[in-house]
Amino acid sequence: MKVAKFGGTSLASAEQIKKVCQIIQADAQRKLIVVSAPGKRFKEDTKVTDLLINYVNACLADTEAEAIRDEIVSRFVEIGNGLQLAEAVTERIGAELHEQMRRKEGEAPARFLDRVKASGEDTCAKVVASYLQSLGVKASYVNPYEAGLLVTDEAGQAQVLPEAYARLKQLRERDEIVIFPGFFGYTEEGILVTFSRGGSDITGSILAAATEAELYENFTDVDSVYVVNPQLIDQPKEIKEITYREMRELSYSGFTVFHEEALLPAYRAGIPVCIKNTNNPAAPGTMIVAERASRDYHVTGIASDSGFCSIFVSKYLMNREIGFGRRLLQILEDEGLAYEHTPSGIDNISVILRKDGFTPEIQAKVIRRIKEELHAEDVEVTCDLALVMIVGEGMRRSVGTSARATSALAKAKVNLEMINQGSSEVSMMFGVKEVDAKRAVIALYEEFFGDETSL
Amino acid sequence: MKVAKFGGTSLASAEQIKKVCQIIQADAQRKLIVVSAPGKRFKEDTKVTDLLINYVNACLADTEAEAIRDEIVSRFVEIGNGLQLAEAVTERIGAELHEQMRRKEGEAPARFLDRVKASGEDTCAKVVASYLQSLGVKASYVNPYEAGLLVTDEAGQAQVLPEAYARLKQLRERDEIVIFPGFFGYTEEGILVTFSRGGSDITGSILAAATEAELYENFTDVDSVYVVNPQLIDQPKEIKEITYREMRELSYSGFTVFHEEALLPAYRAGIPVCIKNTNNPAAPGTMIVAERASRDYHVTGIASDSGFCSIFVSKYLMNREIGFGRRLLQILEDEGLAYEHTPSGIDNISVILRKDGFTPEIQAKVIRRIKEELHAEDVEVTCDLALVMIVGEGMRRSVGTSARATSALAKAKVNLEMINQGSSEVSMMFGVKEVDAKRAVIALYEEFFGDETSL
Repeated sequence: MKVAKFGGTSLASAEQIKKVCQIIQADAQRKLIVVSAPGKRFKEDTKVTDLLINYVNACLADTEAEAIRDEIVSRFVEIGNGLQLAEAVTERIGAELHEQMRRKEGEAPARFLDRVKASGEDTCAKVVASYLQSLGVKASYVNPYEAGLLVTDEAGQAQVLPEAYARLKQLRERDEIVIFPGFFGYTEEGILVTFSRGGSDITGSILAAATEAELYENFTDVDSVYVVNPQLIDQPKEIKEITYREMRELSYSGFTVFHEEALLPAYRAGIPVCIKNTNNPAAPGTMIVAERASRDYHVTGIASDSGFCSIFVSKYLMNREIGFGRRLLQILEDEGLAYEHTPSGIDNISVILRKDGFTPEIQAKVIRRIKEELHAEDVEVTCDLALVMIVGEGMRRSVGTSARATSALAKAKVNLEMINQGSSEVSMMFGVKEVDAKRAVIALYEEFFGDETSL
Repeated sequence: MKVAKFGGTSLASAEQIKKVCQIIQADAQRKLIVVSAPGKRFKEDTKVTDLLINYVNACLADTEAEAIRDEIVSRFVEIGNGLQLAEAVTERIGAELHEQMRRKEGEAPARFLDRVKASGEDTCAKVVASYLQSLGVKASYVNPYEAGLLVTDEAGQAQVLPEAYARLKQLRERDEIVIFPGFFGYTEEGILVTFSRGGSDITGSILAAATEAELYENFTDVDSVYVVNPQLIDQPKEIKEITYREMRELSYSGFTVFHEEALLPAYRAGIPVCIKNTNNPAAPGTMIVAERASRDYHVTGIASDSGFCSIFVSKYLMNREIGFGRRLLQILEDEGLAYEHTPSGIDNISVILRKDGFTPEIQAKVIRRIKEELHAEDVEVTCDLALVMIVGEGMRRSVGTSARATSALAKAKVNLEMINQGSSEVSMMFGVKEVDAKRAVIALYEEFFGDETSL
């Protein structure tokens, strides 16, 4: 049994939904289908989820929301008509959507938002189920509450509850294709709560883990995961097989093909994940697995992300002071700041953190506290840092990977602000100035993927 | 005015003390002289300080201590005779030493130990002052209590008190050569407390800072500081000039020529330090300065040290957990463990710490706490790590230093367990297996110092 999840562009129009349903029918193992809300049909189009958010904001601001609501409903009506659903079916689905979008008396804004956001996936699941039924396929829409997808009560940030898995396992027993809306679950009290944005990937992963699926297929609009961001390198090499750990390191910076949190349930249950293309289902896609069979490539991928700051702190004899590092991190924690890395010398330590939320006011406060409370001699903040990472299982065990990487970067005249290679066998990270990041990625790509003989 | 400090081997015999006094007389600026206790005269000899410690241990164990005491007193008598001091002078100094070594009723063992340990430097200072006087030089022994060298009441670990500096500044006014015993000071209540072992370097640095000396000369038994430990490389290159920061990074691992804490007072007061050889005072020595004039060498030195452990901790989505790193460090702090570095990946972090004190029992406790309190998936401790460091101001700003270093290490088949280069402009650190450490140092020496053209 396979769980297949289809993303927004795979469901953006009647035409796309027909492709999805052909894919579902092409493999009898595809029994549990998770759908997103319809995405963009063309570059300038708006995703249904964004329309739903606009609608809620308009309602909350007491401005004209009806036009937006009508646009959303008509998106689905258009899809229903394109799929030649019976008029009564389309009308019923539209009426239910209308009802879901109605603001309830006294409802908290966050609850209202979650409920309306979820209606995109929910309606889409109903449309897909109805279309399959119209084709004579045995298929049903299943509501997450009914199926037992229990989550924490954190609006827009729900986490699955452990007890959900046993309940969801029952889905295996159904002798029909289940169409399941992604992106949301319910609290024990029956309140609808959504995952973070892009959370249909999470729903699919949870269902695959719960039902012990043999495979979790994640259908999107690219043939595979690439070894580097295609926006930086034209037609980069495809990744055929990648481990969970490699995928996790890559998804950290620049690899947005799969939701960061989505890998966890599949990883824990050991369910392989396949990233496939709805528009080219014959392509083999990228397999995400626990252990890679082929170890030919020492480096699996190159990721990069910008928008990092570093706080440099120096103090003579710092390394003799027990608790210095811990107290430094405590100051950041007090200010609600998460950090990424802490490379250190003998008498100095740098904290690398994301720029978001590290406002000039908070910067000033943090600098003052570090000077006053830790008696640091020097505290400097710079905010033009990018992180470039090469990722590959077992890479560290091969002598010379760092030499190849640093030599390639030196040849490209990239100055290294930071090198961070720990006990992890999976990645090696370089801190560079933002202006150097693209040049660094290209240099590393050419070194590790540019020449067939070097693979 | 210069402060000159002479180490143990420079004062090990009458012959050596004569050299010291020639050096003192050779420069009228050498007005403030700090002396250690007599060190080893030959390889198998015992330092006076070690004899004094043995003596105290024997007293405390109520075993026969008189023989050791007599050996110590006779060392000084022999020196006095060798210097042809008047018999009465040698007798008086010997009697005072005898008195200092007498155990007082009810004295705490730590106080007794500090008091006796200090008598080596104290007696030596009296001997040197008497010898200079016998030569007709205007010179006096000055006691640290009288001069105002106030310290904290931490036996064997004293720290200078800020108010000491103003009092010690008065030493400038003396129109004679001051001979000052190193290694100890007094609390405000007049209790003698010693610095940590090798602390005469600290006394010299404090006096140089307090008197705003133009130079602090530290006389030892080597011509200079070398770019690498001479036990690893035969006749390595000498360092002519080095910054405080570089010296500090080097002294951290393997460079024992100067006490780690001793640099701080000179550094804060901006007093240059010169490491010179008593046995070859014509050699220019190594200057430790705030800013290096010559920036020809990108790499100033190579240091290495073994005996490190790493605690590898991994947990899926670790980097999303605010406070994870801080709580990890808190566990170590609770167990009284200082750490050195914390290189990290996305979902893993390693803590590098020294093996000393990280006993198997504490290891087991730390592993258990990390698993239970932080819910880490994987915690592994390995204890065969050495750190190898290349040090040089501005090194990081020069593109390609890391490429040269990692390439040299790869060519020597050294696998890099860890690379840690932070915002520090001074050093770059490589973690290697202990068995690889010597090969790594040799490879780096050859790369950065082996060929004249590469300097």
